[in-house]
Amino acid sequence: MSDSVVRPRPDAAVTLRPVAGARLNGGFWGARQRVNREVTIPLGGERVRESGAFDNLKLAGRGAGGEHRGKIFADSDVYKWLEALAWERGRAGGDDLARAYEEASELVEAAQAPDGYLHTHTQLTGRPRYGDLASSHELYCAGHLMQAAVAGSRATGDRRLLEVATRFADHLVKDLPPDALDGHPEIETALTELYRETGTRPYLDLAARMIATRGRELLPLKGHHGPGIRQDRVPPREAATVEGHAVRAVYLAAGAADVAAETSDQGLLDALERQWADMVATKTYLTGGLGSVWYGEQFGGPHELTPETAYCETCAAVGSVQWSWRMLLATGAAQYADLMERTLYNAVLPGISLSGDRFFYVNALRVRAGANPDDRRAAARGRQDWYGTACCPPNVMRLLSSLDHYLATRDGDGVQLHLYAPGTIRAGEVLLEVETDYPWDGRVEIVIRETPDHPWTLSTRIPSWSSDAVVEGTLAGTRSDGTLAGAGAGAGAGAGAGAGVGFGADAEPGTYHRVRRTWRPGDRITLDLGVRPRLTVAVPRLDVARGQVAVERGPLVYCLEQTDHPGVIVDDLCLADADLRDGTPLAGLPADVVPVTARGRAHVHREDDGGSPYRTAAAPREADHAGPIDLTFVPYYAWANRGTGPMTVWAPMHAD
Amino acid sequence: MSDSVVRPRPDAAVTLRPVAGARLNGGFWGARQRVNREVTIPLGGERVRESGAFDNLKLAGRGAGGEHRGKIFADSDVYKWLEALAWERGRAGGDDLARAYEEASELVEAAQAPDGYLHTHTQLTGRPRYGDLASSHELYCAGHLMQAAVAGSRATGDRRLLEVATRFADHLVKDLPPDALDGHPEIETALTELYRETGTRPYLDLAARMIATRGRELLPLKGHHGPGIRQDRVPPREAATVEGHAVRAVYLAAGAADVAAETSDQGLLDALERQWADMVATKTYLTGGLGSVWYGEQFGGPHELTPETAYCETCAAVGSVQWSWRMLLATGAAQYADLMERTLYNAVLPGISLSGDRFFYVNALRVRAGANPDDRRAAARGRQDWYGTACCPPNVMRLLSSLDHYLATRDGDGVQLHLYAPGTIRAGEVLLEVETDYPWDGRVEIVIRETPDHPWTLSTRIPSWSSDAVVEGTLAGTRSDGTLAGAGAGAGAGAGAGAGVGFGADAEPGTYHRVRRTWRPGDRITLDLGVRPRLTVAVPRLDVARGQVAVERGPLVYCLEQTDHPGVIVDDLCLADADLRDGTPLAGLPADVVPVTARGRAHVHREDDGGSPYRTAAAPREADHAGPIDLTFVPYYAWANRGTGPMTVWAPMHAD
Repeated sequence: MSDSVVRPRPDAAVTLRPVAGARLNGGFWGARQRVNREVTIPLGGERVRESGAFDNLKLAGRGAGGEHRGKIFADSDVYKWLEALAWERGRAGGDDLARAYEEASELVEAAQAPDGYLHTHTQLTGRPRYGDLASSHELYCAGHLMQAAVAGSRATGDRRLLEVATRFADHLVKDLPPDALDGHPEIETALTELYRETGTRPYLDLAARMIATRGRELLPLKGHHGPGIRQDRVPPREAATVEGHAVRAVYLAAGAADVAAETSDQGLLDALERQWADMVATKTYLTGGLGSVWYGEQFGGPHELTPETAYCETCAAVGSVQWSWRMLLATGAAQYADLMERTLYNAVLPGISLSGDRFFYVNALRVRAGANPDDRRAAARGRQDWYGTACCPPNVMRLLSSLDHYLATRDGDGVQLHLYAPGTIRAGEVLLEVETDYPWDGRVEIVIRETPDHPWTLSTRIPSWSSDAVVEGTLAGTRSDGTLAGAGAGAGAGAGAGAGVGFGADAEPGTYHRVRRTWRPGDRITLDLGVRPRLTVAVPRLDVARGQVAVERGPLVYCLEQTDHPGVIVDDLCLADADLRDGTPLAGLPADVVPVTARGRAHVHREDDGGSPYRTAAAPREADHAGPIDLTFVPYYAWANRGTGPMTVWAPMHAD
Repeated sequence: MSDSVVRPRPDAAVTLRPVAGARLNGGFWGARQRVNREVTIPLGGERVRESGAFDNLKLAGRGAGGEHRGKIFADSDVYKWLEALAWERGRAGGDDLARAYEEASELVEAAQAPDGYLHTHTQLTGRPRYGDLASSHELYCAGHLMQAAVAGSRATGDRRLLEVATRFADHLVKDLPPDALDGHPEIETALTELYRETGTRPYLDLAARMIATRGRELLPLKGHHGPGIRQDRVPPREAATVEGHAVRAVYLAAGAADVAAETSDQGLLDALERQWADMVATKTYLTGGLGSVWYGEQFGGPHELTPETAYCETCAAVGSVQWSWRMLLATGAAQYADLMERTLYNAVLPGISLSGDRFFYVNALRVRAGANPDDRRAAARGRQDWYGTACCPPNVMRLLSSLDHYLATRDGDGVQLHLYAPGTIRAGEVLLEVETDYPWDGRVEIVIRETPDHPWTLSTRIPSWSSDAVVEGTLAGTRSDGTLAGAGAGAGAGAGAGAGVGFGADAEPGTYHRVRRTWRPGDRITLDLGVRPRLTVAVPRLDVARGQVAVERGPLVYCLEQTDHPGVIVDDLCLADADLRDGTPLAGLPADVVPVTARGRAHVHREDDGGSPYRTAAAPREADHAGPIDLTFVPYYAWANRGTGPMTVWAPMHAD
């Protein structure tokens, strides 16, 4: 069982600390992890090999130059894939994974220059080191190397890459020009984690220096873009929102959160809380997806969240989870776990097919009928086998293989459960077992298997959508404090029942429900989070959703797909009423996927519309509608697994 | 007075023919032409000079290579500016213009290679000719040279550039590789016009060959884009819609229409009618603007017409006018003149400030509050002095200086008026005088000044928005056919009045109102097109306009600008009812600009919105609104002339 993916030092300013011993076991995410291990990671190795990234390392190892293949940041694909391998080895072992990891690590090790530098594009082309940091991705790649190295060390104790990473980091501490920044942040969080792993303080100091140096327009401008796209317009400490390239923004924010924690920098943390809040309020799609602008893969303006042109890069979703996790550790606030969950289910997971071998780089919330087959914007073209810029697939791999680490935390007073999945949570003397069919079912059973003989608090997250959650307890027998605990005691709605055992009355959405007591092995807590279909609407400023609704169920965002609606075009569909129901399994999707059904109508294209889509009228007109039509909503993450066609997350409501 | 900008050969398959003798004189467009002549064209010369484009020509003329400055297509800026100069000289003379024209023509002439080739980037860099036509813009620049040359010849009889252009065209006919296509169409229409001017048939044949060769994926792919962006995915004869780079699409279509006319190619014309209809039905903004995708400056999918991310390049609007004009000549159908008018007022004109010295390359229909100052998307940044890629400003210049040519046409049976502006129309034996304050006032007076003594038809366009147009006549006295024509005879609503003079009953919107008779000098026809504010709505598939309305008045699209609404944010405004009224002049805008006023409200940001823009609800919720607020709409073309801030063309309707 691996140590955690993020591990603040003992003196870090954090509210919550990761638990090393969380283990996913089956269920929704277990199935995704199995596909990740059996299909995606092996396939990823092949694709990375085909891209030439291993060859680049081989050539660099020979030290005689040569032709670099693929993108300037091709090394990072190897590192992210290695990180996934490392966590997966720690999670579930496997000789085949170990061999692949060893072989690739050997190439990386051999490619490193004698002084510790490593970036095959620079080494093979002979370009000057750090001569074009706005574009070269040298430090970005270094960061991913460090993260892979930390993963290897924590997951399996394999320190081979860690030696490489520390040599590189030592070189950077010694030789990197004082104001050097990479156009693509990433190394900041990596250096901090490497400090956490090794205790070498200069790594943290270098990360802190980079955070302090950013936002002063030191990076040269390139192309049509301003300094914001490279996160170099406003210092992280002063920024009030997120801007520019979405992946870079959230990677930088994650790094800044790490630095803030390790340096007890409350001012920096405050700024990050502000930025995160503005991002959630004005620049986050319903799916948790980030980035509405194709041009530069950027955040758009506030409320600029057009569904069909959503960028929502899969990597930005991965980075968002990383940032939110660090904010959760720092503050303990449930909102961060809420966004993590939303993002994992609806913005990370759509990036990979159910079969594990096809990918989305961009995740639009709508695809219209008649999309141009030449349109390279990805959603209309469907999932792809791989990408020339292949950042996203291995990013999903490494997150899935380390997902166990995000389930729970501990603090001085107890254990907090953030994400619900079957498995076990070991936190010091506490061992919990979780049983659930979440997210399909809202019932989560938590059994205390081991516990110290003194009071501690079990905190369970009540998601913000869970408006009538119920928390109940079944206690194992006589308490160590002498009271007798009856079966079925406690309820979310009021004071304790049975033998005076209270489970609290504050099962408030968007908070943690907390029960502090002296637990006994066999005690059982049952959450019912009330997973059922619901309609979601948006504020008036979000005018792309005006007059429209979305269907959600538990943590899942749903969508209408063309394949389930023969005879009509998804573009023309609307809901006729708010009566949503769970549907029966659909052919072509796993049997556990719960569709949502509703009554709908289709608007009719009137003869008098003529050639123009515009006409004079005294007020917005109601369209003519035919109906009723049975609508079938499927989870957004599962779309485009039965062919690609029109799809929408938002649909008009047209009640008579 | 110039011969027309487009001049089909006598044997061309066209329904209408341009009139050489149309002359704008004052009024709305006259004022724009004056600014164009006095401010924009001189400024354009300076900016082109500063860009290095003249220096490139000088260096090329020396034949010894040298550093090329500016974009690879910098020559075209010179040519488009020269074309503007030429038309302006023809329109209104001027020694200063003549000198500037002569100087620049001399540079162009000197830069031409002995065999006729001319493209300074290729000449100065020594790259192989036609070696990278997907990107080099060699033929695109050649096309603009030809258009400038034709303008010089037609406007003033100056044949200096025409010699250069024909030498180049002769070289192309002889030496251009058989399948050669430019990544950016333009030369097709230029070659056809050069054929029209010179009678040299091989120029037309070359243009026809290029149209026949396109759409076969012969151009190499570049970047992330497919063949569609260079108009090379579907042959023009087979295409059912427009796609790819919007400017390239409409330039190619204009060229194809020219070729279809000169070769009597009905199949090609049919295809163009189909493409145009699909463009209007699904890919045209209310302003007439084209292109909704920043990525590649492209058309989006059908109904993908998001206001804030509209690309609507000014050049695409110019090209759209060119295409529609050619379709109008070919078919005589009023819809083409309708789109021309919409586009001229609302998509071309917004590209230039009222002062004539600041420009928009991109024309968004909405700018939100809180736009990122680093966002390089142009609308939020306001008008610019010039652009690194300076295609748009000289495109507007040449269109404004040749606008007279688009007012009217003739056919075997009479004269057709398409655009309404004060001036004179000479068509053979007919001389018309037009008096009007259009578009501010819907009344248009047409006086027959000269007429042959036999019947002919005067056709006047009734715009598609003019739902209750009235056409009346005041006749000069005794008819040459012996009947007595009474004053005030005729009406749009029924049979003739007075002495048996009928003015027809078919003043149907979107058609031509036709009166055939033996006219006499002094006969006067009065149109009242009913210019008053109206509300416009969109079809349901255009979901970015769902529940919203736009204000139009005559041919003008209006918008809400922040500067007229202190104390509230434009993003929050909605209309409270459909009671629109003409307003009084606004400070900072010309006194003739008629604002439109309405009662509105502003939605209130509720406390319980919390941090997320999404919430659970049974149906789309009505926002809380405060009010009433006086709303002031200004013509969209006039926005961003009093500072830049939030702006919107579409606004929600929120009637209680």
